Amino acid sequence: MAAAVPSREECLELDRVDPLAGQREAFALPTDVIYLDGNSLGALPKTVPERLTTVAAGEWGQDLIGSWNRHGWIDLPLKLGDKIARLIGAQPGEVAVTESTSINLFKALYAALEINPERKVILSEVGNFPTDLYIVQGLIRALGHRHELRTVPAADIAAAVDRDTAAVLLTQVNYRSGALHDLAAVTRAAHEAGALMVWDLAHSAGALPVDLNGAEADFAVGCGYKYLNGGPGAPAFIFVARRHQARFSNPLSGWLGHAAPFAFEPEYRPAAGIARALTGTPPILALAALEAGLDTVLAADMTLIRAKSMALGDLFIRMVEWAGGERSGLTLASPRDARQRGSQVSFRHHDGYPVMQALIARGVVGDFRAPDILRFGFAPLYVRYVDAWDAAAALIDVVATRAWDRPEFKHRAPVT
Amino acid sequence: MAAAVPSREECLELDRVDPLAGQREAFALPTDVIYLDGNSLGALPKTVPERLTTVAAGEWGQDLIGSWNRHGWIDLPLKLGDKIARLIGAQPGEVAVTESTSINLFKALYAALEINPERKVILSEVGNFPTDLYIVQGLIRALGHRHELRTVPAADIAAAVDRDTAAVLLTQVNYRSGALHDLAAVTRAAHEAGALMVWDLAHSAGALPVDLNGAEADFAVGCGYKYLNGGPGAPAFIFVARRHQARFSNPLSGWLGHAAPFAFEPEYRPAAGIARALTGTPPILALAALEAGLDTVLAADMTLIRAKSMALGDLFIRMVEWAGGERSGLTLASPRDARQRGSQVSFRHHDGYPVMQALIARGVVGDFRAPDILRFGFAPLYVRYVDAWDAAAALIDVVATRAWDRPEFKHRAPVT
Repeated sequence: MAAAVPSREECLELDRVDPLAGQREAFALPTDVIYLDGNSLGALPKTVPERLTTVAAGEWGQDLIGSWNRHGWIDLPLKLGDKIARLIGAQPGEVAVTESTSINLFKALYAALEINPERKVILSEVGNFPTDLYIVQGLIRALGHRHELRTVPAADIAAAVDRDTAAVLLTQVNYRSGALHDLAAVTRAAHEAGALMVWDLAHSAGALPVDLNGAEADFAVGCGYKYLNGGPGAPAFIFVARRHQARFSNPLSGWLGHAAPFAFEPEYRPAAGIARALTGTPPILALAALEAGLDTVLAADMTLIRAKSMALGDLFIRMVEWAGGERSGLTLASPRDARQRGSQVSFRHHDGYPVMQALIARGVVGDFRAPDILRFGFAPLYVRYVDAWDAAAALIDVVATRAWDRPEFKHRAPVT
Repeated sequence: MAAAVPSREECLELDRVDPLAGQREAFALPTDVIYLDGNSLGALPKTVPERLTTVAAGEWGQDLIGSWNRHGWIDLPLKLGDKIARLIGAQPGEVAVTESTSINLFKALYAALEINPERKVILSEVGNFPTDLYIVQGLIRALGHRHELRTVPAADIAAAVDRDTAAVLLTQVNYRSGALHDLAAVTRAAHEAGALMVWDLAHSAGALPVDLNGAEADFAVGCGYKYLNGGPGAPAFIFVARRHQARFSNPLSGWLGHAAPFAFEPEYRPAAGIARALTGTPPILALAALEAGLDTVLAADMTLIRAKSMALGDLFIRMVEWAGGERSGLTLASPRDARQRGSQVSFRHHDGYPVMQALIARGVVGDFRAPDILRFGFAPLYVRYVDAWDAAAALIDVVATRAWDRPEFKHRAPVT
């Protein structure tokens, strides 16, 4: 049996004294759900519906095309970029909000290869988020198969960087296990071998302190709809360190990245600074929602967010293991040391899929990743200690009583 | 003096008998504005604010991650693609809604070059919309400068296609002049020379009948926020003719284009059909607004839309020329024959910028394109005959009285 665990009452008391407790009020949450999937889709900031109505009915509807100036629409990609910069240790003018994570990764890797033209290897991690690997594969094909994607286990990354490595591409927090890379140490190892460092912050931004400038990272991308609460399919972001911006060339050279987009010149001439990372016309409705999401994170202290995130994860692990450990069929798939985890906890279970469906039927929403991973994300702005306690209790019960062993929980929905 | 023009009363009568008159009710329009810029940003469908509230507060807020299945979010890119297919002469399964026009053009051109690997020229039109040319330039650079962009005047396109031409890229309606390419004839000329045809339908989709399949076009892209009324920066679309889909390879190979996106396989394996043109996670809020916009167009008969569009443009031209012709300083920059125009009319004026600002100050909203083009877009779903009459009268008066010759109209806003 593992260490003793707090009682439910003690968790309620932790919530009462939680300095972040008030942040939960910023979110509209269903009353009958414990939502532990903010790592996949963040919860709805209460301000979003009204903000969307204002932008649609008030701005688009009333001021129409004039809104691009009058309501500052044209400024949103860099304005929001500057807001994200504050969350990831970047300076103003180093981040743009545009397109999707995948598209931005294509741009960042392309630029990295161009800056490091003699080297042919993109080094990544076995089990990196698939879209990151897919984008590398597409880029290598587009560039004429002159490069190579090499993947090694996470622990071997630093040792595997060598003089062939043009760029190291890593997602800071592994999407399955939640394992957290040491951003500064890996970046240093890449640089020592002459490689550039490209970070995917999909599961980091808004969840934990990130210091890109402190680590002297080169490029980064990230997602707007997870811990940044920007809404389903929210625009993503791209970071280009200021020292690289002058030679950052965007292969997706659309008009918004032009030095004078409204001059309608026939030749592409990249904008100065991070604006050259832009491509198409900014998606204003989506950006408005994302800004509301960003504001929920900026309203809180990132140190407090991280401390609570670690405490919630520790509590959940201790509860689940206290109740049964290996006998339960649940095996911890995340680092036990909270400092080595992002803001999620994963357990393996042989029947993970129906276990998660049974949990969801009880109002505890995490998600499942094949073949056997149960993921529980702890977004500290709206997840309470008592939620972690109740979720663990539900998981323990579902497993102990085999409540998952019913046909309706084994039917697979198209999206899981 | 040109032909006689109808009186304002006759225009009001035309509106009374207009079979499309009822469609205007679908839009929220400011009462004091004649909006002739739907070619740049379509007007707001009245259903959009409520639809956004439903998707944000009802779906995202209440059902959270479960909405991807429960509310069919994951299906929106292809569902909306099928709706657009009905407007552009494509079959279901030939159109996907995703990313921006620029990004989709990169994909389409990449695929065209890959299907036609021995040929090195992308042929386009002098004065094509700049982002289209910029994307070609970026693609050529990414592919190692093995290709060439050649631009010729519009009238010379058919003659310029030769055995070096891999792809012809044209915007069907010129963004400045409104001149309309004969989609079938140009496609035939391209094919006869062994080239593939890529159409940019930014100013065509929703404005006039387009028959991609009838013309046997190969690829097309287009914009959601102009005549499709999808909102500022709405997602764009891509058409890939069914016969090319099996060999369509998407260089921006993100997870949504994977055959099994939720299997999280390490190797990219393209989905069957048009789904392989997808890249990142679909932007649900923006797609919801776009669907409302598409429904405004699908509710009307495209033949009626085109007939009214031509009549509105003709009326506007006759009014302006009747009132002054060359003496006014206004010169028609669009084809006089409505069959050769899209849904816009452009006039040149030496002081075009302040003229447009003075018009906007009177509530007539068109736009200006350097160096001297006044653009007036006629979106037949919400522009009335009397609007065209009143707008022409305002233009005539602004020019005749030199009302534009004031400092406040000469100050240039950042976005025009």
